[in-house]
Amino acid sequence: MLLYDSGVSGNCYKVRLLLAHLGRAYERRELDVVDRSNRAEVLGELNPALRVPTLVFDDGRALGESNAIIFYLAGGTPYLPEDPFERAQVLQWQFFEQYSHEPHIAVLRFWLHVAKMMPSPDELDAKRRDGEAALMALERHLEDRRFLVAERYTIADISLYAYTHVADEAGFELERFPAVLSWLARVKEQPGHVPIDA
Amino acid sequence: MLLYDSGVSGNCYKVRLLLAHLGRAYERRELDVVDRSNRAEVLGELNPALRVPTLVFDDGRALGESNAIIFYLAGGTPYLPEDPFERAQVLQWQFFEQYSHEPHIAVLRFWLHVAKMMPSPDELDAKRRDGEAALMALERHLEDRRFLVAERYTIADISLYAYTHVADEAGFELERFPAVLSWLARVKEQPGHVPIDA
Repeated sequence: MLLYDSGVSGNCYKVRLLLAHLGRAYERRELDVVDRSNRAEVLGELNPALRVPTLVFDDGRALGESNAIIFYLAGGTPYLPEDPFERAQVLQWQFFEQYSHEPHIAVLRFWLHVAKMMPSPDELDAKRRDGEAALMALERHLEDRRFLVAERYTIADISLYAYTHVADEAGFELERFPAVLSWLARVKEQPGHVPIDA
Repeated sequence: MLLYDSGVSGNCYKVRLLLAHLGRAYERRELDVVDRSNRAEVLGELNPALRVPTLVFDDGRALGESNAIIFYLAGGTPYLPEDPFERAQVLQWQFFEQYSHEPHIAVLRFWLHVAKMMPSPDELDAKRRDGEAALMALERHLEDRRFLVAERYTIADISLYAYTHVADEAGFELERFPAVLSWLARVKEQPGHVPIDA
């Protein structure tokens, strides 16, 4: 398998973390996430969104969207429940991540930490407000749970861990979310865990 | 089943359209999408994102996120392929919809058509540019295909139809995307189809 990858991308890290848990071998090809001028040339036939991660299997089939990729790779493994309702709950958290979490926390981290761009005060306020709302939703859910779905570690946790554990790089104060902090520690303790910069 | 719903929301329409295809009975409860002040009170225990659609089953279990809901409801029906890779392709398009399509086309439609708010010129330009990129990605994919995945009508088509077929209400000129227009017509011809305002 060939992973079109970015070392700083939490979306790519989701795939790398699951592949590490699964002990599967793959090749990495780093794409620039600031200068995206070669994306159509490299990914045009592989992923309509022209984004990383894009995973290309040995038979040539390709898959885009981090959460779709890890849902596929986790099928038949302990990282994805078999029960259809639990699977739907995993997807609920993955769609929450892509709509209500990533566009705020990951985008703000990208601006401040990766691209070193300073947003306008209004943009900064909006990302902080919406990012904090996402962290508060996680906090409420995790106050009486060990993991997001089915009380065990699944790809829902991998999806939300990816950008939550580096939210401090976007200026969020994770100390204000103690249940989230405990959950981050539990995720990190899982066998086969690798850090984002591995 | 009880659907927390909004008549103008394309996300809610995805659920109503699939339930119409499946001939399943359900109750609708309309929530305001402009004044959201009662959301925590109504949805706080049901959906961490406090959004519609939220579907509550007769046994009390609840599910949020339009794409997770229809993935669950479509299981075991012709609207979701059994093959794991085709399922992953369905999810790829659903995540594309929530990240690269809905935040531009649906949000611009909400501003202009539902809330009657005028965005700033910069906001308007950004939404138009990103929405057109999403429509162009659809156009390229549909140029030599009848449907998005597996050459048959699936929930991937339902997810992308929801806001694409009303993109003119956001000011997008669908005439510039002929393969998209043909696909919209094919979706509309499916047995059991209902319009967004049904």
